[in-house]
This record gives sequence, structure tokens and C-alpha cells, in this order.
Amino acid sequence: MEAEIITIGDELLIGQVVDTNATFMAAALQQIGISVKRISSIGDRHQAIETILSEAVPRTSLILITGGLGPTRDDITKLALANYCKTSLRLDEATLQHIESLFSRRGRPLSELNRQQALVLKNATVIPNALGTAPGIWIEHTGCVIIAMPGVPFEMAGMMNDEILPRLKQRFVLPSIIHRTILTHGIPESRLAETLADWENNLPPPITLAYLPAPGQVRLRLSAKSADAEHIAALIETEVQKLQAIIPAAIFGYEQDTLEAVVGRLLRARRATLATAESCSGGYLAHLITTIPGSSDYFKGSIVAYANDIKNRLLEVDQAILDEFGAVSSATVAAMARGAQNRFQTDYALATSGIAGPGGGSPEKPVGTVWIGLATPSGCQTRQWTFGTDRLRNIEWTTASALNLLRLELSQPAPNPE
Amino acid sequence: MEAEIITIGDELLIGQVVDTNATFMAAALQQIGISVKRISSIGDRHQAIETILSEAVPRTSLILITGGLGPTRDDITKLALANYCKTSLRLDEATLQHIESLFSRRGRPLSELNRQQALVLKNATVIPNALGTAPGIWIEHTGCVIIAMPGVPFEMAGMMNDEILPRLKQRFVLPSIIHRTILTHGIPESRLAETLADWENNLPPPITLAYLPAPGQVRLRLSAKSADAEHIAALIETEVQKLQAIIPAAIFGYEQDTLEAVVGRLLRARRATLATAESCSGGYLAHLITTIPGSSDYFKGSIVAYANDIKNRLLEVDQAILDEFGAVSSATVAAMARGAQNRFQTDYALATSGIAGPGGGSPEKPVGTVWIGLATPSGCQTRQWTFGTDRLRNIEWTTASALNLLRLELSQPAPNPE
Repeated sequence: MEAEIITIGDELLIGQVVDTNATFMAAALQQIGISVKRISSIGDRHQAIETILSEAVPRTSLILITGGLGPTRDDITKLALANYCKTSLRLDEATLQHIESLFSRRGRPLSELNRQQALVLKNATVIPNALGTAPGIWIEHTGCVIIAMPGVPFEMAGMMNDEILPRLKQRFVLPSIIHRTILTHGIPESRLAETLADWENNLPPPITLAYLPAPGQVRLRLSAKSADAEHIAALIETEVQKLQAIIPAAIFGYEQDTLEAVVGRLLRARRATLATAESCSGGYLAHLITTIPGSSDYFKGSIVAYANDIKNRLLEVDQAILDEFGAVSSATVAAMARGAQNRFQTDYALATSGIAGPGGGSPEKPVGTVWIGLATPSGCQTRQWTFGTDRLRNIEWTTASALNLLRLELSQPAPNPE
Repeated sequence: MEAEIITIGDELLIGQVVDTNATFMAAALQQIGISVKRISSIGDRHQAIETILSEAVPRTSLILITGGLGPTRDDITKLALANYCKTSLRLDEATLQHIESLFSRRGRPLSELNRQQALVLKNATVIPNALGTAPGIWIEHTGCVIIAMPGVPFEMAGMMNDEILPRLKQRFVLPSIIHRTILTHGIPESRLAETLADWENNLPPPITLAYLPAPGQVRLRLSAKSADAEHIAALIETEVQKLQAIIPAAIFGYEQDTLEAVVGRLLRARRATLATAESCSGGYLAHLITTIPGSSDYFKGSIVAYANDIKNRLLEVDQAILDEFGAVSSATVAAMARGAQNRFQTDYALATSGIAGPGGGSPEKPVGTVWIGLATPSGCQTRQWTFGTDRLRNIEWTTASALNLLRLELSQPAPNPE
């Protein structure tokens, strides 16, 4: 079962608004086993709407449309759709009553523009909009189901969840489609692809693999579609287990997980606390950790020591260490980590020091050189990376690498309490 | 001059990734006077890519493509494009050297997959990718310029700004289109629209106004297209001056400026230094400040005091103040700001404390309650805001409001040195 999505609005074509509606609809359809083959965005133009309908209707069974149903746009989507389907508009009494009740509840007068929102296509099924005034429209034309929804994201989302998805499941016989996303850190995409080549070549049909790189991680997505949901779920699970055996340390989570959330759960499970001492990451490490609700349970705080004298005064890094090895060195990040552990009285502490760029590089320590230190209850480890030349990317890679270093440490079996 | 955008990737069709690339490219084209007529997203399939090219090429003069240029096997854009243009691939020596130098810099071995990224279409112009391994490709086919770029957003953005836009301006005769973006903070969009209604209604043609809200700011964009660039530039400048007279305090910059960059320049001009003490902003304030290259000249560091005892121990906030007024209070942020100013020995210090959510709210101090303190050489001021219920938004609003408080302070005439 295949579908297309059409989003309508000039604001999409001038880059003023990101098309989150298409993403939401695609994900929702995917979940019920409908594959989106194409997403198209066009402007608020009669001709553009009719043209794209005449292209898409013959090649697909289902079209979802959003946008152009609001009161300021003169209902251009409905008119163009009616024209394309060679039908006309009628006033829907139930919708008009719904609009009237919404307005009287808000104490606002009903304008003629608002009344026109109750106009729907003849022969169309009217889809109620619990969250707004513009109803959805469901019409079948030459074997294709066309559904138009309002473009306001939360109205569309409510309508999809409450009305459209249940109706689609009734209308079509749908296969089961299963995705599993595996999150990895620490192996670059190209090396990962080589490491996994044998496994990938032996993936049993209908399982397919996709690589999705993102800052600080590479996501692997396994997908399969079949009439037998249980069978492919088991098939995918087997492949995930094989993958875990090939790259056990690189996998940090699944689906929508994040390194900061994983680290948070590991700390919580051990009832352990964390602090950070940040030079080149400039507070971004603390920021990521504190994006997690409830992180105050295990995160005590951070000292962003951007100036060298602060590393010395607030983090207790010996001036002799700074003089001998420099701020970007193993000895300094180790001292920073121990200083933070001591100042914040935590079990663990992460420290970063590096050259984020664009300035500050040297032949021995080029831009992108980063040291990370991790103080644990039993000692201290440090590691060095050489990232790239882009300042923001270097900050992102630094924080992801630091979180991953802590994740690997916390993933070891906990020492026996004495 | 019209264009189409094609974004390639299964992750777009299953709703896993929002298509921010299309938005970025559309906005960039718009800026130089090229109108995007359609955006299409398709999967990583040979046939789909060739089909959409055969549809789009005859109806437009320019096609921008992103995605499918990575090193893994689901990246097939180059092959499909070569097939459609009836050409083949060749190894580009300059690109291979660039890739080799990137890898040797990072101390990583070059794999066969990485080498393949140096393959480009015969007869195509190779567009350098300063930020990654996959080059861009510019090919002209039956009168249509087709440009393929990598799908990694920051690589694509760098390539657009540094390579594609300048080349498009050379290749095509484009109308003069002038935009001027005015950045405001502190007045919500709806109130701003009311305040500016008279001015907006009297804008002389061909000037148009767009409101572009973003976290912590509302951008106003004035645009005009004309053959007479000088005339409309003067016209727009007059309107900007009128606007400055209506909302002088709210305007913090123009075009791509940011609050953190403006604050950095103001501090630098005064040879003044800054530190931060962060509770609810969790390090994000320090992060934004340190995204600016060279910020170490004026930014000394931050103490992220997530736990109350840290506010006391590291920021010297009296336990009596915390006990009497609570952590989210005027007295506490004032003490935090003075503590940071003292600890880091800076001229200015900003402090934040609030309830970011989702937990921690109470009837007196609901989620979204935030206090900000600013210590200056001559005293200390505090201000309270009530933001929303979304944790990340609250963090963003907190940092933008804190930076703006400092901006307003630094925009006052400096006191005479004694």
C-alpha cells in the first residue's frame, strides 16, 4: 500500500516554515504499514494544486494533503480539489454548528470567512476537527482516496490520530511494517559500513538496512514489511542480536534515545552523581545533560573554565601542570576532572579541553585537538581526539565523545560494595 | 527565474527526519531572487530519482538536490544522475586528495568506500566540500542546471553559502532583490504586530514585510524586488530608520546577528569581562557565549550550580537567603551574580534560576518561572519572567532574556573613567 503527501503553502517554498507536517504524516502512515513514496510541497495556487493532483492520483492509492483550508486563504485547496474532482461545494450543517459553538465559547462574532469554513465538497466525507474550525475532507476519485486536512500542525495531528488513521485501517488491508533503529557512537560511518558489510550482505529478505548519520552518532535502521508481523519482528530481533555481537561497545541505545539520556539512566541506576569541568565544550556538556527532565537528581553542576587562571583557581589545576603541559593536555584534563569531582563532591566527573577553532591551533596541536578526562571513584582516565575545523561541530563531537566515555565506564559491571 | 528542490532519503519518507535542508535551500534561493515552485522528497531508489528528474528537468531551469552522496550503499544519487544524464563516473584527483588529507589529519585509514566519494560525473563541475568528504556536483542537461549536494545539513549549508549561491549569481541574470532583516527581542509577535500596524500599512510598494518568529526573538524582514537596486535600497533604509524610532530598545541587530555576538562586541569595546552562574539554564548560556570565536577574550567561565548546596559552596550564596527566599528568587539570583563576579573576577556576571519543568512547579512558582540577575561594576539588578511549560523552550527563552538584559545594560553610555 503506497501513498503520497502534498503540503500546500507559499511559506514552505520561501523557506519560512519547516515542513514538520509532512514528517508527522509520513511517520504516522509508516506506523500502520503504508509506505509514502513521495512528498511534494507546492504554493497556494489553483493551477499548482490541480496539476499535482493530476500527476499523483493516477499513480497512487492514497493522497494526504495539508494546508490551504484556513479562513485567510479563501479555501483555495477545497476549490481546487472540487474543480479537479469535477464537483462543487455545499454547506455542511454539522460543521457550521461546530464552528458557531467554538466562536460563542470564545465570545467572538462569526465572520463570513469563518462561515465559509463549513463549505465541503459534495460527495465527500466530512472529517470533524475537534481542535479547530476547518474540517477535513475525504473523497474518493478514480480509485484514489484523497484526504485534505488543515495545515495547523496540532489540528492536523489530532485529526490524523483520532480520525484518519482509524479510518485508513478500516478502508485498506494493510501489511505489518516494523522498524528498529540502532544508535551507535564511536565508529565513523564508512568504517562501520565496512565492519558490517558481511552482516549486511546476509540480511534475510525482506529486511533492509539504512545508515543515518547525525552529529556524534550513526543510526542504523532495519526495516521489514510483511503480512506476518510476529515472524518479521523475530527476524529483526535476531539480526539486532548479531549486530550487538559485532559492535557491542558502539551501540548505545535504540529508537529515539540519546547519549545524555542513557548516561542519566546509568547514573540513576547506580545512585551515582556527576559534575563536569568544561573548557572547549564551553557549557554544552552541562546543557545536554540538563536537557533531561529530573537530571538534577544526579547532576550537581559544572565549572566552565574558559580562562586558564580559572582552571587553576576554581578547579585546583596546578599552575605547574598548566605551565609544563599546556591547557590542552592529558595532565590538565585529568586534573580538571579530579578538581570537579572534589569541588562538587561527586562520584564521577568529566573534563574537556581542546582547540575548538577557528583560532588557537598550532602544528603540534591543530584546531580540533581535544582531550577528555574522566574521574571515577577508582581513578582517572584521559583520551585524545582530533576532530575537524568547524567550531560548532568540534563542540558537538567533544560532548558526544565525553558522554560516550562515561557511558562505557558506567556500562562495566559495578564493583562489589565492600 | 524558477527552481525546484529534490531531497532524497528514505528517512524523509518514513518521517524519521524533518526536511530542514529543503527549507534552508528555499530560503537561500529566495534571498537571491530565485523562486522555488516545488519541493519533492523521494526515497533512495534509482528508479524514483530518474523518474523525478525526467519530470522536473523539462519544466524548470534549476534543480537543487540533496542526499544520497554519502559513502554507504544506500547513497545512489550520483549513479542515478549519471544514468539520467547518459554519462558515467570518473575519479576526481583533487577530491581524492582532499579526502585523503581529511583522513590523515584525523589519523584514520582511508577505505575503498571513502575513495569512491571522489567519483564524480564526467562533464560535471566538481563543487568542493570544505566541511566533509562528499563533493557537490554541478551539471547542465538539456538546458537545466542540476546541482547535487550532500545531505548532511551543515555540509550542504556551507556549500550553498560558499559555492553555490555565488556561482548561481554568475550563471543567471537575477533581478535585484533586497532583503533587510531586523532582529528584535522582548516584544511578543502579536503585540509587535499591533505596535507596528500603522508603519506596516504605510510601507511604500514594492516593499513587503514578513514576521519570522524564532526562539527568543522576532525577526522582521523587509523585501523588495526591482530593476533599480539603489532606489529600493534607499527606500528600505528609510523604513528601517522609521522602525528604529518606534521600537528603539527592542532592536538588537540585523541580518544573521545574534544576541551572543552583539553582547560579545559590546564587551570587547569596553574591554570588559563576563562570567555566568547558571541554574535553570544549565550551561546553555555559557554555551551560546562560547559559540562566538574569540569569546575567551572576554568570557572567563561559568559555574553551573544545579544543586542548591553548590549555589552555597561555589557561588557563596548565603544559606539564609536560600532558606528564606528559595532558589528561584530575586535575592538568590542577585547573590549568584555577585558570587560569579567575585569568583571569576569579572566586570559583569549573569545569573539564572528558574523552574524549567516539567516537574518542580508550584502554585506560587509555576513551571516557567525564571529569575535573572545581572551584576555590573556599579551594582546588581534582577528581573522575573514567566515563560511556558516546555523545558527546552524555557531554557532558550531564559538565555535569550539574560543576554538581552546584559545588552541593554552595555548599550547605556559607559560611565566616565575617574
